[in-house]
Amino acid sequence: MDTDIRLWMVGTVGIDTITTRKGRFENLLGGSVTYAGAAASFFTKVGTVGVVGNDFPDTFLERYLKLGMDLAGLQFEQGPTFHWEGVYETDMVNRRTVCTELGVLETFAPELPEAYRQAPFVLLGNINPDLQLHLLDQATGAKFVAVDSMDLWINCARPALNQVIARSHLLTLNDSEARQLTGHFNLRNCAAALCDMGPEYVLIKKGEHGALLFSREGISIIPAYPVREVCDPTGAGDTYAGAFMGYLTECGTVSPETLRQGLLRASAVAAFGVEDFSTTRLESLNREEIEMRAKELREMARL
Amino acid sequence: MDTDIRLWMVGTVGIDTITTRKGRFENLLGGSVTYAGAAASFFTKVGTVGVVGNDFPDTFLERYLKLGMDLAGLQFEQGPTFHWEGVYETDMVNRRTVCTELGVLETFAPELPEAYRQAPFVLLGNINPDLQLHLLDQATGAKFVAVDSMDLWINCARPALNQVIARSHLLTLNDSEARQLTGHFNLRNCAAALCDMGPEYVLIKKGEHGALLFSREGISIIPAYPVREVCDPTGAGDTYAGAFMGYLTECGTVSPETLRQGLLRASAVAAFGVEDFSTTRLESLNREEIEMRAKELREMARL
Repeated sequence: MDTDIRLWMVGTVGIDTITTRKGRFENLLGGSVTYAGAAASFFTKVGTVGVVGNDFPDTFLERYLKLGMDLAGLQFEQGPTFHWEGVYETDMVNRRTVCTELGVLETFAPELPEAYRQAPFVLLGNINPDLQLHLLDQATGAKFVAVDSMDLWINCARPALNQVIARSHLLTLNDSEARQLTGHFNLRNCAAALCDMGPEYVLIKKGEHGALLFSREGISIIPAYPVREVCDPTGAGDTYAGAFMGYLTECGTVSPETLRQGLLRASAVAAFGVEDFSTTRLESLNREEIEMRAKELREMARL
Repeated sequence: MDTDIRLWMVGTVGIDTITTRKGRFENLLGGSVTYAGAAASFFTKVGTVGVVGNDFPDTFLERYLKLGMDLAGLQFEQGPTFHWEGVYETDMVNRRTVCTELGVLETFAPELPEAYRQAPFVLLGNINPDLQLHLLDQATGAKFVAVDSMDLWINCARPALNQVIARSHLLTLNDSEARQLTGHFNLRNCAAALCDMGPEYVLIKKGEHGALLFSREGISIIPAYPVREVCDPTGAGDTYAGAFMGYLTECGTVSPETLRQGLLRASAVAAFGVEDFSTTRLESLNREEIEMRAKELREMARL
């Protein structure tokens, strides 16, 4: 048994077409587990659960391997890989989905590799909550489970989503999703309602405005790093969650201090991620740069 | 000469009608110098420059005096006081102006009281930049001048606004105004362009998302306090600027440390201010509550 996998994650693998103020690019490596896995790989070896089609280029697999990601949970199926095309407005926040082609994702039936089952840290990235639940059932060694989701599942799969949230230790959503899921507007009220659904921690992501971590012990305010030039914000939330869980896994413990330090690294890594399209910047990044940016951000936020 | 005035400010005095999710209220004491003056009064005696009409209730003057504001710069004219009516959307951020009646503000020709002329700290609150310039000409003792403005003056009085900005030490705007004034979208680029216009410091306010202070030495990220229940966000930016300048005046020096500590108090005071309509909450507030909330916010933001 490959016991060095202490964190695994599930999510989409996609081939994206993205248009921002900085240009239009096709055939970009994307998907929630791609961004989260790349970000976590600076801190730990990541077990990757996802599905790709027979159009998935070998060069993309090589990029995963070069990042140090473990691919035992990656399924290869006949058919096209999940494809997403989006166009960002000038503000680099609002976006319009041009098309979504599920491809092999439509019939994805993931099984958790034996080598991942004892891993204490789990990130259930944004994907159908039925799949998140199915995998969680197999995660016998899971000690700290974080779940991410999106508006689609809040609208279409609420019962399964509620179940997976109830079984998680940390729920992460962006602010609009938190409002949508709870019906509250004030984020403190949202967080209280979300904590009542089961998780000990609720992490509300606000993009360029940072994030708020809520628990019964209190609130942590985590600033975003002020990026000089955003190229492509796709996957920033996944990058954030991945880096955060990677850092916690490296530490091996969940405490107010490791949570804060993990979120600081998450801000740093996510800020690098948006500086180029796809995971390009993450692939040239090193740990020293992450620590320097984390230190710079801590200094900016010192009160 | 009344030498105990070390901070004076100019701005509008208004009688507001405000509708939010929490209700609709008429005849509210409002205006930029009202909010800023109330907020600054916790830290120093504030010289107040503004104009009111003969409909301005004595009870409003009593409220100013009870807050400890100096009214030597308040002019009393024949005619109606400036009136603003606004309706907030459910998000408590976006608002629609129903009507604006300038009244005595239209012909306001302020003169700086003798007792204010040697004051080292000046807040040129949001008002016609021609009036800001006229007063600044009389402020012979001014050492640290902060200027606030709004979209109206950016659109209609750019030459005068540019002059007043060039003569100020700190420019404060909200994020949309900073983008409008510079034509840049990225806030780091906005700040660089605004610093090139003259001021040593640029403070960009982002409402519930906090603020960013830019200078050639670096960036400070100041979080907003997560308010449990917003009643009325009117004047929050003025409250923020007023508390900040009040704190700096109390300290008597402008340094990276006093700027940060001032902005922390500004977040605390502004968070109290929005908990009720008009300046109601500020009038029942005391310094100890401000320090407790500032301490709580610092703890939330500790990295």
